[in-house]
Amino acid sequence: MSSEPATPLLDTVDTPEDLRTLAPSQLRQLADELRAEMISAVGTTGGHLGSGLGVVELTVALHYVFDTPRDRLVWDVGHQAYPHKILTGRRDRIRTLRQGGGLSGFTKRSESEYDPFGTAHSSTSISAALGFAVANKLSGRAGKGIAVIGDGAMSAGMAYEAMNNAQAAGNRLVVILNDNDMSIAPPVGGLSAYLARLVSSRPFLSLRDIARRLSRKLPRPLHEAARKTDEFARGMAMGGTLFEELGFYYVGPIDGHNIEQLIPVLENVRDAAEGPCLIHVVTQKGKGYGPAEAAADKYHGVQKFDVITGEQVKAKASAPAYQNVFGETLAKLADSDPRICAITAAMPGGTGVDKFAKAHPERTFDVGIAEQHAVTFAAGLAAEGMRPFCAIYSTFLQRAFDQVVHDVAIQNLPVRFAIDRAGLVGADGATHAGSFDVTYLATLPNLVVMAAADEAELVHMTYTAACHDSGPIAFRYPRGNGTGVALPDAPERLEIGKGRIVRQGTKVALLSLGTRLAEALKAADLLEAKGLSTTVADLRFAKPLDEALIRQLMTTHDVIVTVEEGSIGGLGAHVLTMASDQGLTDAGLKIRTMRLPDLFQDHDSPEKQYDQAGLNAPQIVDTVLKALRHNSTGVSEARA
Amino acid sequence: MSSEPATPLLDTVDTPEDLRTLAPSQLRQLADELRAEMISAVGTTGGHLGSGLGVVELTVALHYVFDTPRDRLVWDVGHQAYPHKILTGRRDRIRTLRQGGGLSGFTKRSESEYDPFGTAHSSTSISAALGFAVANKLSGRAGKGIAVIGDGAMSAGMAYEAMNNAQAAGNRLVVILNDNDMSIAPPVGGLSAYLARLVSSRPFLSLRDIARRLSRKLPRPLHEAARKTDEFARGMAMGGTLFEELGFYYVGPIDGHNIEQLIPVLENVRDAAEGPCLIHVVTQKGKGYGPAEAAADKYHGVQKFDVITGEQVKAKASAPAYQNVFGETLAKLADSDPRICAITAAMPGGTGVDKFAKAHPERTFDVGIAEQHAVTFAAGLAAEGMRPFCAIYSTFLQRAFDQVVHDVAIQNLPVRFAIDRAGLVGADGATHAGSFDVTYLATLPNLVVMAAADEAELVHMTYTAACHDSGPIAFRYPRGNGTGVALPDAPERLEIGKGRIVRQGTKVALLSLGTRLAEALKAADLLEAKGLSTTVADLRFAKPLDEALIRQLMTTHDVIVTVEEGSIGGLGAHVLTMASDQGLTDAGLKIRTMRLPDLFQDHDSPEKQYDQAGLNAPQIVDTVLKALRHNSTGVSEARA
Repeated sequence: MSSEPATPLLDTVDTPEDLRTLAPSQLRQLADELRAEMISAVGTTGGHLGSGLGVVELTVALHYVFDTPRDRLVWDVGHQAYPHKILTGRRDRIRTLRQGGGLSGFTKRSESEYDPFGTAHSSTSISAALGFAVANKLSGRAGKGIAVIGDGAMSAGMAYEAMNNAQAAGNRLVVILNDNDMSIAPPVGGLSAYLARLVSSRPFLSLRDIARRLSRKLPRPLHEAARKTDEFARGMAMGGTLFEELGFYYVGPIDGHNIEQLIPVLENVRDAAEGPCLIHVVTQKGKGYGPAEAAADKYHGVQKFDVITGEQVKAKASAPAYQNVFGETLAKLADSDPRICAITAAMPGGTGVDKFAKAHPERTFDVGIAEQHAVTFAAGLAAEGMRPFCAIYSTFLQRAFDQVVHDVAIQNLPVRFAIDRAGLVGADGATHAGSFDVTYLATLPNLVVMAAADEAELVHMTYTAACHDSGPIAFRYPRGNGTGVALPDAPERLEIGKGRIVRQGTKVALLSLGTRLAEALKAADLLEAKGLSTTVADLRFAKPLDEALIRQLMTTHDVIVTVEEGSIGGLGAHVLTMASDQGLTDAGLKIRTMRLPDLFQDHDSPEKQYDQAGLNAPQIVDTVLKALRHNSTGVSEARA
Repeated sequence: MSSEPATPLLDTVDTPEDLRTLAPSQLRQLADELRAEMISAVGTTGGHLGSGLGVVELTVALHYVFDTPRDRLVWDVGHQAYPHKILTGRRDRIRTLRQGGGLSGFTKRSESEYDPFGTAHSSTSISAALGFAVANKLSGRAGKGIAVIGDGAMSAGMAYEAMNNAQAAGNRLVVILNDNDMSIAPPVGGLSAYLARLVSSRPFLSLRDIARRLSRKLPRPLHEAARKTDEFARGMAMGGTLFEELGFYYVGPIDGHNIEQLIPVLENVRDAAEGPCLIHVVTQKGKGYGPAEAAADKYHGVQKFDVITGEQVKAKASAPAYQNVFGETLAKLADSDPRICAITAAMPGGTGVDKFAKAHPERTFDVGIAEQHAVTFAAGLAAEGMRPFCAIYSTFLQRAFDQVVHDVAIQNLPVRFAIDRAGLVGADGATHAGSFDVTYLATLPNLVVMAAADEAELVHMTYTAACHDSGPIAFRYPRGNGTGVALPDAPERLEIGKGRIVRQGTKVALLSLGTRLAEALKAADLLEAKGLSTTVADLRFAKPLDEALIRQLMTTHDVIVTVEEGSIGGLGAHVLTMASDQGLTDAGLKIRTMRLPDLFQDHDSPEKQYDQAGLNAPQIVDTVLKALRHNSTGVSEARA
């Protein structure tokens, strides 16, 4: 795909120790080679490109100035850490990024001592860095905590909570605000507008500014009076930046691509800071690679691409992506229903809300990386008679669990949760898997929890949710493209708590929830070939369960197997609980629950992940056969 | 307890409509009568006193100026809303506060149209008010969203997320920052220090200031130039308050007990605001009641008390509170282990962390109402070799679920979760019940989940958690006092995943997790009296399960009943899943799972709540007897 670039200086740098032997004058060249190497690598593997390109100089400067890995450097989200990986002993594996067995697309503790804290979900870095800083302070060890966090990530409440507690770290906390005016989508909110004003109203610090400004932080008696005045002015005149008001010493803005300026600022902060510092660095996402700079999303996440042309190798999709089916269906429903609103937390494209926004911009709310607010805001809309859809990835909805419980479920407000990326997610790995939503939602009173078996079902469920005004309702669907079924001309309103028989048999009953239905049907074919007549049900609802259907299948089939793409506590657990509540296990019930394994699965191709999880057709067959062969040794007979 | 005060003016005011017929000059008297009535009522019932006393004037002023209930008034947390309840048609029930069948201690939609949004957990009000404001804007209806939020609640990220999105509401959002420099514990963090500086550096607005300041917001052509200059100055000079920087128009500080000043400010904001406004009101918690003003916690939450003396009727405790057993045990362990730290999110007293803080202040971290930060900060501490204990109520840990998954469980970091208020909580009701923690934690790989059956067990579990360095571990325990068992001289390190037989029988096996053990033992006595020899096991661990013990009980007893104080998906579900995984149901297994019902239980006495939940001894007996009598009709036999 891409020929590897010539990188004579980078070739001499395996770790930050090597980097720190270079002269400052060599760092520009090193950064250029690092950028070229990164472009080449991502051209080969695909992955996150724009963010890493924006922090090449910052990465070099941070490792040059700070004593990594003893100083703990935490990259927020971590998808900008590819240059960091190249510089920290992982260059030889950089072309395995996001591949099975290869490097993670985020930072990861098990990968390197230079990754002191794994990241992936946004806005965790300041809290973690504060933890490192305080621990070292308590035990009297050297070591600062350094968080590099984007302006988009600053919109999350968690970052604010951490800033509000920064004083606990004393001068051991350094926050680098990487302001590229862009997270994945264009930035939203008051903070973003504020940062833009901050940058536009103040010129970049010059070297002389830096020297003058930082000298005041030096703890020399000579400067004592000036320093006190400065602190007084900062504290009392209310004229500081928002960060100063929260207790940080603010330095910036600084041109994040100018290594010559980054180095002295970082050195001064390292040596002379008297409290937590925030360095406001302005960078350009996609910097130094023409096609990325020119693209609207700055090549945030890319497929493999041609380095010369920038052209990405897009796999041809045989069926529409689930997210787009959702977004387009909702947009259509909203044409005739003015109550429908869509809410996204900084993921308009990923959730398909962009499709809705095109048709109904005034009813679209991108709240930034703020899932907690998104859910309670939706609850407020619902309480006032609107029909809000919160479109949030399964893994990110975890951020708003309390709001789902406290503001939505307890009040029984009809908020609709469109849960994308449910189940395994392939290259994004464990941090982005949507494994727990059925468990954490179906345990809540008042919730209705659905899972779509294919994109036609998703159309129906979107419509069903729109119509459901009596309480909250959630529907989950996976990452990626649909199965290719025909989309219905008109959506159908599903009966709440009713499943459907997809295939009728007599001996074996497979109870599927969600898109593993296709594998259950394949398994049924294989079982049939072995003479085992197999029923396949698509339960559609994890809550309320279709108790009549399940009971009927349990009382008429020899073995029951539930299949779901979720962890323990979900569908299988609810089915078992229902069975034992009704005494259906009393006289014998061969039932097995197939679910995600009790471990966090690493990134890999979806197929391999399903195989590891044991949720493919052959494994369903195997489970059925083993159950049929199983000779009950314990329980009733043992006692009889 | 308290004689009812004379309230001639208040007697004429049943709803805000009545209030709005009064002359401004009458409002002072009304506030005084309202305060007296509230003190009298809480003297009778107990409840939250200090917060309500602080907002008497504000409550009167808000209902006087705004068009409630069409303007949607959301009281953050809601425990300061007793005066609001008295003024909004609920005075006749105010002496039923927090009693079974009586008024809730928080705001609640089902109680009154004047409670447009239920609250209880902190920091939700701005998001909800924004939802109301936007919904009305979209549908062209009148109606503002008004949030009243304390300075303590402002430390939560959720409030910041909402402020960051305030522009969406235009001038329909009004935020009242009720700054009493005190939430439950003394305030912490940068924001709190900032607010204190803000108040100390600016005198209260005088009536003339208010007139001058607000006139500039009036949309008259005459003022156009001045207004633009003002906006430019606010926007570009970076000299505004933090709130202005996030896009609010800031008015304040204002003396929140001076009705004469509150009224014109609120009227101006109501009539002339051009965007979201934040009114900074300074109040005094406990205002107007001597004993409350004099108390350190300003009578935040009180028992019934004598109105004259302020003396509270404290029930004599027969056994120490769980929270104190935890705090004192941890403090003792920390004497010889410098790695142990304690973290609380604004609940030092409620979690017993105050006991730890007394001995080890430098290792105690009160992070404010910031559970998300608390957990990831703890993960950072753990990654650096400390032994952090996050002491958070079960219901509030929901706020940090994603951090538990993403920062703790995936990285397998040894953060210890001390989960107080697990299960039902009595007078605080559904919003504060800790019903879901076993379900949402035990579904996570790497987690160890324990529940203490009594306070001696809590000592052991605290120690076991301290020793457990291989990954995260959680232990839950209820609200209230222990059972009165002797506390061990030395804590014992429990073997992970091992339960214990508390009573050996042969026919019936009760598998208990947590403090329902006492009821299980009572049930065993009752069953024994009926000739049913009963084993009682205290499983101690919901994860990992003691599979050997459970299997052995299943294969040797006629009926198995699990008992837990948690919702579906927890212990019972895990036991059933294990049984079906191992084929133990194949030939018949009489098993029932007793758990919390699938509904949100209203506040009541704990005993009545347990009765409603069906988790008392007679109900355990009943479940056993019904299971024994149950004549399996379906399944195997039906097919045979």
